[in-house]
Amino acid sequence: MNTAAGHKRELPLSKVYGHLETGPVLLLTTSHKGCDDVMTQSWHAMMEFVPPLVGCVVSGNNFSFAALNATRQCVLNIPTVELADQVVGCGNTSGARLEKFARFGLSKAAATLVTAPLIVECYANLECRVVDTRLKNRYNFFVLEVVKAWIDPACKQPRTLHHRGHGAFMVAGETIQLHSRMR
Amino acid sequence: MNTAAGHKRELPLSKVYGHLETGPVLLLTTSHKGCDDVMTQSWHAMMEFVPPLVGCVVSGNNFSFAALNATRQCVLNIPTVELADQVVGCGNTSGARLEKFARFGLSKAAATLVTAPLIVECYANLECRVVDTRLKNRYNFFVLEVVKAWIDPACKQPRTLHHRGHGAFMVAGETIQLHSRMR
Repeated sequence: MNTAAGHKRELPLSKVYGHLETGPVLLLTTSHKGCDDVMTQSWHAMMEFVPPLVGCVVSGNNFSFAALNATRQCVLNIPTVELADQVVGCGNTSGARLEKFARFGLSKAAATLVTAPLIVECYANLECRVVDTRLKNRYNFFVLEVVKAWIDPACKQPRTLHHRGHGAFMVAGETIQLHSRMR
Repeated sequence: MNTAAGHKRELPLSKVYGHLETGPVLLLTTSHKGCDDVMTQSWHAMMEFVPPLVGCVVSGNNFSFAALNATRQCVLNIPTVELADQVVGCGNTSGARLEKFARFGLSKAAATLVTAPLIVECYANLECRVVDTRLKNRYNFFVLEVVKAWIDPACKQPRTLHHRGHGAFMVAGETIQLHSRMR
């Protein structure tokens, strides 16, 4: 396993929201009892700027649920369109029956503050801890705090994937700049 | 005010998630004490397919917070890039000092199950009721149930807006179809 940073740089926590607020598909990684897993995830929302809080649904049907619930740690990895096959592959399979990293050719790097691995091929990696589980039983909803963030400085306009359902994905298009006072 | 449907058709509730899961900027409308308001909103997540549940942060700093909190109703309207100026305008201003519909040239239509108005110019409109406020005090987070949904049948590939921060918006790009078993 590589070291945490590799060719990536630390992303200030105050800039995390701009990478999640657009609604990209994520690859959520966990590590529990010697087993690393990765699942495809689109149901997330920013809840605070700093420290960055992210609300996230991880279904009890997912193998990752038990790991997230037990360890209270995960990494949110943000893939781009080059990883579309891996995104779909991880979404179609279960970690209960498959070691997905090897199967889909995803490389691990060590995180610094959590035990779950970073996915090297993703342009951004967000190390997270669970901070609120009040809506877990009813909705499988976890509130995560991003405690460390990494980014590939060469990836200026990430062509992220956005799930429309049933395997249809919108690929991030052009960026327009408007005169906004919105953070 | 026009009737609810206009040129739009009812969207089956089971298809709502595909329009929110991509993470578009929304225009959230409320109606309270004779005052209609609209705010720009990007912090939302799907929480259930059917009935569709949507988690949504509406800051206590927003004029809309009091209306949503008191009436427990709103409409999530989904704009496309043609409405970029209105999205930014609504995000830069407060309903406490401005009647935003008139100021930004947005047309209202009557909803069927809630008092908040639909925005005619948006390609989709989701009538919502608040169903869970357990995370409201800590995070300004409301769980909404979509009770009725409308869509413009002519808008097949909506060029939605996705906020990167500070007035930069990603415009929805091409759609790719992969062999997925993911709903």
